[in-house]
Amino acid sequence: MKLITSKTNLRYLINFTGSAGFLLMGQRKNYFFTDFRYRALAQKLEKENTRMPFTFLELDENFEKNFKKIMKGKSLLEFEDHDMSVASLVSWKKRLKKMDIKGVKWKAIKNPISQLRQIKDEEEIKALKKSQKINDTVLKEVRSHLKPGMTELEVAWMIKSLGYKNGAEDISFEPIVAFDESSASPHHQNTRKKLKKNSIVLIDMGMKYSGYCSDMTRTFFMGKATNEQTNIYQKVLDAQLAAMSACKSGIKTSKLDKLAREIMGEHATFFGHSLGHGIGLDVHEYPSLSTRSKATLKENMMVTIEPGIYLPGKFGVRIEDMGRVTKNAYESFTASPK
Amino acid sequence: MKLITSKTNLRYLINFTGSAGFLLMGQRKNYFFTDFRYRALAQKLEKENTRMPFTFLELDENFEKNFKKIMKGKSLLEFEDHDMSVASLVSWKKRLKKMDIKGVKWKAIKNPISQLRQIKDEEEIKALKKSQKINDTVLKEVRSHLKPGMTELEVAWMIKSLGYKNGAEDISFEPIVAFDESSASPHHQNTRKKLKKNSIVLIDMGMKYSGYCSDMTRTFFMGKATNEQTNIYQKVLDAQLAAMSACKSGIKTSKLDKLAREIMGEHATFFGHSLGHGIGLDVHEYPSLSTRSKATLKENMMVTIEPGIYLPGKFGVRIEDMGRVTKNAYESFTASPK
Repeated sequence: MKLITSKTNLRYLINFTGSAGFLLMGQRKNYFFTDFRYRALAQKLEKENTRMPFTFLELDENFEKNFKKIMKGKSLLEFEDHDMSVASLVSWKKRLKKMDIKGVKWKAIKNPISQLRQIKDEEEIKALKKSQKINDTVLKEVRSHLKPGMTELEVAWMIKSLGYKNGAEDISFEPIVAFDESSASPHHQNTRKKLKKNSIVLIDMGMKYSGYCSDMTRTFFMGKATNEQTNIYQKVLDAQLAAMSACKSGIKTSKLDKLAREIMGEHATFFGHSLGHGIGLDVHEYPSLSTRSKATLKENMMVTIEPGIYLPGKFGVRIEDMGRVTKNAYESFTASPK
Repeated sequence: MKLITSKTNLRYLINFTGSAGFLLMGQRKNYFFTDFRYRALAQKLEKENTRMPFTFLELDENFEKNFKKIMKGKSLLEFEDHDMSVASLVSWKKRLKKMDIKGVKWKAIKNPISQLRQIKDEEEIKALKKSQKINDTVLKEVRSHLKPGMTELEVAWMIKSLGYKNGAEDISFEPIVAFDESSASPHHQNTRKKLKKNSIVLIDMGMKYSGYCSDMTRTFFMGKATNEQTNIYQKVLDAQLAAMSACKSGIKTSKLDKLAREIMGEHATFFGHSLGHGIGLDVHEYPSLSTRSKATLKENMMVTIEPGIYLPGKFGVRIEDMGRVTKNAYESFTASPK
């Protein structure tokens, strides 16, 4: 049997959005357990056409009896080792002992569902497109409201408020709003630093729609950019466009990462993170677009392409699109101007 | 040595707010490791007066050398088993093996820092008060905007938007907005259900300020309540007020839970969750106010008191305050009218 505990995997397999529950997947049948709080939801999903059909069993006084019956004659319980805490595993083992279930071997499974999740179906692609569409709309509105004196935190709040207003169910991560030298820190945490007339502004933001995440970065200049700023911006943009042009089904992600670094030339030393990542129910999913990755792109994978150059103490530029890998190209879902 | 990996515990001990890093606590010295992204932050915190003074070491090419030096002669590594995934523990063990660190025993520590975190200091209490103050302000604004036709999801978005507008850095959990029979589900997930002229409305919401969470529930009637509704509301309110009156340092939390159930009488069967919980950097912390809890309240613990009665298929009422346990009383931080 396979024991699925990860919330995003439960959402993927059976559309469950509650906070507690687990799926027990067998050769022939699957069982989903959750408590009375999610009874109505589980009963509804049981009748729907989910990726994984299942029988719902409530975590009530019959749980032990039901669980024992299912486990009868089974000798292996495979579990999601990235999701299960050491404490939970101990408590599971105690539970089985209490139920007098013996001889079961626990074995870690290495994310088989996360591997599955890389290739998106039509409905997922629709949700991802819509999620990024909201993201584009919000950025446009935010840009129209920016004025000197606003703080990074205020802009971040505005992004979140406008996100909800425009129909996002949530943000996919805390927006990064970095003014001037803050932009040199790729994972800047927003402060009360104020926007100036000539500031450079880096915004990295994402929304959630139907559970699916978007992710985009834009860097722009409130006033006139210096020569150095223009030069760095152009390098990053060239690297991004080159990687996007080369991106298609069949290419190794490490090759795209390498290509972006080659175009940056000597500036590649200031590109301290990887080129991009898969995106879906989680904002960071497989595949990774990095130097060390062994992944090869396939049709209908969704990935970000986000090179950046960060000059310590000065400023940084990152430009990030998200889009779909097709047979022969990369279809960007990001419409915000660069 | 103690290995601290939990993000909230890192925030509590050294004010670290980044996404990756760990603290190695020894008898005499503590070391904090994080990567280049959080270098500036770690250097700043190293100089500040944090709860746990530490030496910052970067996760760079010298990591293995530094780590090995610290572990020299140490035979025990205690880790947070509720936070560490099975996969992470395996990868930590591999890392140690690679560094040729031998004979180290890994031992689970049962949340000693979460125990510490129960008693709040002055600054924490200030942050919690402010967090709930924002929460009160937002609920007041939301109530003034409610009108028939609005959906649960729209109201939830409004709560989030107004939260940011009023200075919250985040929400502490996804707001629960339940109209009419939805309110009978204690952990309702918001839908596109519409508000009616005579709806009963349950809102459970919380904000974050300086990392500290607030949490409050109010149930109210848009029109005139039925006799049954008034009756149930009064029962819940009586139970809450009684528990709040009895709440003080030295009392067993199970006793408060029992008291609330006694006052509900026959309706206690429809009170399917516990009376309350501690609150701080996490929205649910120690102590638990439940039937099975063995906790005794101490001065400056922060707890919620939130009885509820849920009539399946009809409606539910929950009323929740958060406040501080003092020597002789319960100081509620919640100002929203009941």
